[in-house]
Amino acid sequence: MSFNTFGRAFRFTTWGESHGPALGAVVDGCPPGLALSEADLQPWLDKRRPGTSRFTTQRQEPDQVRILSGVFEGKTTGTPISLMIENVDQRSKDYSDVAKAYRPGHADYTYDAKYGFRDYRGGGRSSARETAARVAAGGVARLVIPEVRIRAYVVEIGGDAIDRAAFDDAQIDANPFFCPDAAAALRWEALVDAARKAGSSLGAVVECVATGVPAGWGAPIYAKLDSDLAAAMMGINAVKGVEIGDGFAAARLRGEENADPMRPGENGLPEFLANHAGGVAGGIATGQPVIVRIALKPTSSILTPVPTIGSDGEATEIQTKGRHDPCVGIRAAPVAEAMMALVLADQKLLHRAQCG
Amino acid sequence: MSFNTFGRAFRFTTWGESHGPALGAVVDGCPPGLALSEADLQPWLDKRRPGTSRFTTQRQEPDQVRILSGVFEGKTTGTPISLMIENVDQRSKDYSDVAKAYRPGHADYTYDAKYGFRDYRGGGRSSARETAARVAAGGVARLVIPEVRIRAYVVEIGGDAIDRAAFDDAQIDANPFFCPDAAAALRWEALVDAARKAGSSLGAVVECVATGVPAGWGAPIYAKLDSDLAAAMMGINAVKGVEIGDGFAAARLRGEENADPMRPGENGLPEFLANHAGGVAGGIATGQPVIVRIALKPTSSILTPVPTIGSDGEATEIQTKGRHDPCVGIRAAPVAEAMMALVLADQKLLHRAQCG
Amino acid sequence: MSFNTFGRAFRFTTWGESHGPALGAVVDGCPPGLALSEADLQPWLDKRRPGTSRFTTQRQEPDQVRILSGVFEGKTTGTPISLMIENVDQRSKDYSDVAKAYRPGHADYTYDAKYGFRDYRGGGRSSARETAARVAAGGVARLVIPEVRIRAYVVEIGGDAIDRAAFDDAQIDANPFFCPDAAAALRWEALVDAARKAGSSLGAVVECVATGVPAGWGAPIYAKLDSDLAAAMMGINAVKGVEIGDGFAAARLRGEENADPMRPGENGLPEFLANHAGGVAGGIATGQPVIVRIALKPTSSILTPVPTIGSDGEATEIQTKGRHDPCVGIRAAPVAEAMMALVLADQKLLHRAQCG
Amino acid sequence: MSFNTFGRAFRFTTWGESHGPALGAVVDGCPPGLALSEADLQPWLDKRRPGTSRFTTQRQEPDQVRILSGVFEGKTTGTPISLMIENVDQRSKDYSDVAKAYRPGHADYTYDAKYGFRDYRGGGRSSARETAARVAAGGVARLVIPEVRIRAYVVEIGGDAIDRAAFDDAQIDANPFFCPDAAAALRWEALVDAARKAGSSLGAVVECVATGVPAGWGAPIYAKLDSDLAAAMMGINAVKGVEIGDGFAAARLRGEENADPMRPGENGLPEFLANHAGGVAGGIATGQPVIVRIALKPTSSILTPVPTIGSDGEATEIQTKGRHDPCVGIRAAPVAEAMMALVLADQKLLHRAQCG
Repeated sequence: MSFNTFGRAFRFTTWGESHGPALGAVVDGCPPGLALSEADLQPWLDKRRPGTSRFTTQRQEPDQVRILSGVFEGKTTGTPISLMIENVDQRSKDYSDVAKAYRPGHADYTYDAKYGFRDYRGGGRSSARETAARVAAGGVARLVIPEVRIRAYVVEIGGDAIDRAAFDDAQIDANPFFCPDAAAALRWEALVDAARKAGSSLGAVVECVATGVPAGWGAPIYAKLDSDLAAAMMGINAVKGVEIGDGFAAARLRGEENADPMRPGENGLPEFLANHAGGVAGGIATGQPVIVRIALKPTSSILTPVPTIGSDGEATEIQTKGRHDPCVGIRAAPVAEAMMALVLADQKLLHRAQCG
Repeated sequence: MSFNTFGRAFRFTTWGESHGPALGAVVDGCPPGLALSEADLQPWLDKRRPGTSRFTTQRQEPDQVRILSGVFEGKTTGTPISLMIENVDQRSKDYSDVAKAYRPGHADYTYDAKYGFRDYRGGGRSSARETAARVAAGGVARLVIPEVRIRAYVVEIGGDAIDRAAFDDAQIDANPFFCPDAAAALRWEALVDAARKAGSSLGAVVECVATGVPAGWGAPIYAKLDSDLAAAMMGINAVKGVEIGDGFAAARLRGEENADPMRPGENGLPEFLANHAGGVAGGIATGQPVIVRIALKPTSSILTPVPTIGSDGEATEIQTKGRHDPCVGIRAAPVAEAMMALVLADQKLLHRAQCG
Repeated sequence: MSFNTFGRAFRFTTWGESHGPALGAVVDGCPPGLALSEADLQPWLDKRRPGTSRFTTQRQEPDQVRILSGVFEGKTTGTPISLMIENVDQRSKDYSDVAKAYRPGHADYTYDAKYGFRDYRGGGRSSARETAARVAAGGVARLVIPEVRIRAYVVEIGGDAIDRAAFDDAQIDANPFFCPDAAAALRWEALVDAARKAGSSLGAVVECVATGVPAGWGAPIYAKLDSDLAAAMMGINAVKGVEIGDGFAAARLRGEENADPMRPGENGLPEFLANHAGGVAGGIATGQPVIVRIALKPTSSILTPVPTIGSDGEATEIQTKGRHDPCVGIRAAPVAEAMMALVLADQKLLHRAQCG
Repeated sequence: MSFNTFGRAFRFTTWGESHGPALGAVVDGCPPGLALSEADLQPWLDKRRPGTSRFTTQRQEPDQVRILSGVFEGKTTGTPISLMIENVDQRSKDYSDVAKAYRPGHADYTYDAKYGFRDYRGGGRSSARETAARVAAGGVARLVIPEVRIRAYVVEIGGDAIDRAAFDDAQIDANPFFCPDAAAALRWEALVDAARKAGSSLGAVVECVATGVPAGWGAPIYAKLDSDLAAAMMGINAVKGVEIGDGFAAARLRGEENADPMRPGENGLPEFLANHAGGVAGGIATGQPVIVRIALKPTSSILTPVPTIGSDGEATEIQTKGRHDPCVGIRAAPVAEAMMALVLADQKLLHRAQCG
């Protein structure tokens, strides 16, 4: 059963296919009285937008968002906010290859297995274009949590990681990789170019950090903040792993190394001497930065031919031509930010519901 | 807002604290007519039960489950199945230490930050004892998916990993570590003993595999099978990371390495030549084994004193005496199996709802 | 917290205001493979459409529905179906009266009390125009339940009831009142005309019957079929009462009068000798026709001046000019049909989820 | 699919059968820090308890409620509150009649149609005993809404209505009928006695009023306060109709009669000159008393033999011996109060979530 709605209190529902006339999101449960116009959302969409460098797909989509409801005289009314983005560059290409055979790594086979048939044009609903709707909804979510600052950046491409010592927040928007390390960004240019020219693709690791999250947001037991984040992030196209704080590295620490000791801090709040926990304990925010890291597989659409079967069940080969990101991980950064915002907005309202 | 219910079609709600009179789960949406008695559930609880070896907490809990409703003449009726486990060994120890200061790594501080106060006896609701209720509910879930076989095992403790070449399914139940590699199990005895004696603790990595999951279970976009598994697994106490298939390693593969090529197989189904994807594509099962790996931090309860603050906001130190697992990751294996079963049972019913 | 989503398995989310650019619904969870085009939905919208007779509002809205997603090559794909209806006749009238004072019986005051301000143009989100989106979604729902036939008709206007002995199904679409009794329809012409000319308005009672609902749809305890229908129907604008079967009259029967005796019928199914229950027992369909009756208050928008207060808290009077239905109950008939279809589609899928 | 959970923010899940060992409710989402003990819940259960007069079933159930979780040092902790009531008087009677044939008006046939078999002992899950769990949960809900006073009373039995002019709040608890009119209560003694002796049963109308509900609780469009109340009330056993405010009578008023005019009142709030709306407009509370009326059919368990079919499909007759309420409507009054409290507690938290 498809569930295209996310969230409990602050909820959004997305719709639309890669090659349909439009896609969109309906945001429900948004607090009233927030100043909102298209100009608040467009910058986030522009970050995710394809075609902005040679390292992303060359599909040209302006991704102009329209607000169709829920705003009156420049403010949210508390009723559903309908956001729509028209698809513009649905190139009239020949999809007969994709229609006839399953691309390994894509959802072609599984959609057919589930639904009996599929919209094969550009991946239909399984296309990463759907994330544009999340980014738009995430822009609304950010207005709900003005106390929080969210930042996602790429920390590794094709196994080549940044130097944490060279981390420079200002670099993130200064290169086409959302890379906080200028030297790594230079290396990645060559790396991604080479992969693209070879008809191959690369994976990536993206880190997303939210600062300003108050201690207390989150909840036991099945709406834990880290549990919600895991669902939100694993649901992004191509994500295969999620870590909170030290993640898998924590499994290699001893108890005394992994502890985040506390001492009295300012304003009666504790000061933590470490953040192995990534800002979450028992499913509830500690007040430290909330840190999530996600692993993205290399783009499945590659020019290299791969053995597969056709819709007729016969053996064949497929190579995926067309316009594709050589590293889908790059454009996942603004999507991760949106999902972080959406989870936190929801948890803020949930906390307020129960605890006033 | 606390959400102690998990699932959409096959749902369960858990309740209970570490030191209350009992804990339990209410399972709702279960198909009617399934043969069910306490004897179907007890073996799973016995696997998770504390006090069975010196490598787990010495708290003695028989964890006897009772079925209070939803079963008539030995079969599920389709109405809620209430499962209850009484707490027996709530040792009348002195909790004044824990009452007065926050244990780093525990949910003490965050529960106080959220709720204003907390049940400090044994961690209250944040105790891993809650997972007994999940294991009981998971036992019901298994009956809903007889086509599936689920197996979880520990693949790494304190950074010491198993040898995949030595993997022996029969070993898993032959040692106190759910370890499929006999040699590793021997090494872990010494490792865990040393940590325990040093008043320290160790982390672990657990892998959980479900075979027999039919292609088609799962769903776009916010009820993806991998997204649901990520939420389910990240919500287990002490888990800090979740991987599907190759997980973070996939981020270091090239597109052609990460592809899972297909060829015609038996019964009209495809045969996959690899399973980097871990059995999920586009959020929907491929028919291959569903593979999840989780990272568990070292137990936060350690004898080593750690700087912290008291409930009064003053600086202090805390060392956690009492009966604790030196490696919580071990007993997480049966819990991971339960969560896998619960997610799959839910997805099976969801699939049936939409696709007949 | 606003909830603009209805349903559990077959779900829809509506958005849009009376005077915004458009309104719509996103239908989620729809089974795949159903033939669907705009032509399947438009006839239902045309029934609800305003301006078709002098007995409804003179606002001219073509209510043309567009399908923006979820359909490929003429069939539903199983992904969200986005339906959009543009608003055309948002007459540029002067809303300063409504902006400055609360219309009794409308949601003006309560929206302000809840949200702090409101979109006052034509009632904003509280306008009955929102029901156009339900009717469109209901058209999709009908395709999910081809075994069911749904029929709603008006049985009473302004206290003048139809003669049940004169009930003629063919009459329902033959007059502007969805009235199954030709003589009553004639009387109502005069009745409604007189009310309209007097600047007054009339209430109505609408009955909605679904035949072909199989025994077994529905569920204990909080998703009872009658409970879902009550929520669905009470949520229609202006509805103040809901009855299942004999409804309030059942409270005046004795046990033996109210029983619906059974005897063996065809195909192994029971034959019922009465249907006081209205097709539901214990929240589950009996296989008999499902019968719901709803009471609609007279339109609150009347020319007669009514004492009220302004947004400034001062005493004033208001008379509602503009284009209004003299009897909103009439156009509620197609809306009641849609809600019946939406509830039944959801219950069909829920039943299939649990019981296969 | 059975849904035994009710509510969105303040939620409860009930479980248990008439003749199982116990029944109960798990309350989730309750705000922390509320003083709560069994003594806060027992008085409400005592009102609903059977066997307190000759006008209710003679089954003797103490209905002692136990709190198993979610309370620490006398206060709610914000975690799930598990409430359990043991069944004591499950008389070891012979159920072979009920096992073999369907009682008209009961859920016997529909449970079989849905689930393939049923727990026939005392109606199993469909028994009104389930409402004891709601009343217990409702007791918790009341603590969440101390600003609200809720009162339900019987206004009609067997067609014999109270005299509104004789309404005396103090009478409600002074007779076995929750009747606010002393003279009517006297008449009903004879009426109910006669029905009981004749092996028949009577229906009733119950009214439930909540005062102190602040303007602003409730929500568009599918979580309307009146919509939620309709679902909550229609889900009570034997209920066949629900009215808000004037209900069906509103359908017979003209617009100007039905308006609830306003004038400036105290504390900046409006004063309403009437309450035809029953305290709800556009799904949101107006600040006036919230008024709900429900119709309850006569008890289906009657001594009078009724034609029916057996589980084998053959024609037979059934008369329902045993201990039954001659008028189930009487004990519905405390249940209606509980459902009102549960809906309002949920709506209060939902309102706080969105609007702060």
